Amino acid sequence: MNKKELIVAASQSTGHPQVLIEVIFDEIQRLIVEELAEKRTVSISGFGTFTVIEKPEISRINYFTKEKITVPAKSVPKFKFSDVFKAQVNRF
Amino acid sequence: MNKKELIVAASQSTGHPQVLIEVIFDEIQRLIVEELAEKRTVSISGFGTFTVIEKPEISRINYFTKEKITVPAKSVPKFKFSDVFKAQVNRF
Repeated sequence: MNKKELIVAASQSTGHPQVLIEVIFDEIQRLIVEELAEKRTVSISGFGTFTVIEKPEISRINYFTKEKITVPAKSVPKFKFSDVFKAQVNRF
Repeated sequence: MNKKELIVAASQSTGHPQVLIEVIFDEIQRLIVEELAEKRTVSISGFGTFTVIEKPEISRINYFTKEKITVPAKSVPKFKFSDVFKAQVNRF
């Protein structure tokens, strides 16, 4: 199932128009990105928790050219399913 | 940020009522669970991909009682962020 099919299915089952569902889905996604970019956690009960970890800048040597390369520091998003969600996936 | 705060924020920024946003959020979550329970993938462009892996039944020995225990087979949900999402988290 891709995003379009997910929106169509949610529209059919809730009776709300697809465009409304997509606007709301995109806004929730934008808010999650914003929280993670601010290094904050988003914990959604019954679903899971979004966190972000900081990877420091590291230096590497190019194996062939022996040139020194600096890999910049970056934030890496993480997601952990809640136990409720995991149980639901096994309950069907 | 927890689920309630996420819904309040999405309601404020989209202008749609909180109850509507929660209904849509819960339905999208239910659809994802249903797809994973059927061992199917949910791929949301710009966000990430939900998959499920099968862990087979395994036998274990209780360290203390030496009793043999069977851990039943189970489906384990997995989520992988899209590159677009990862880039957005680093763009702020």
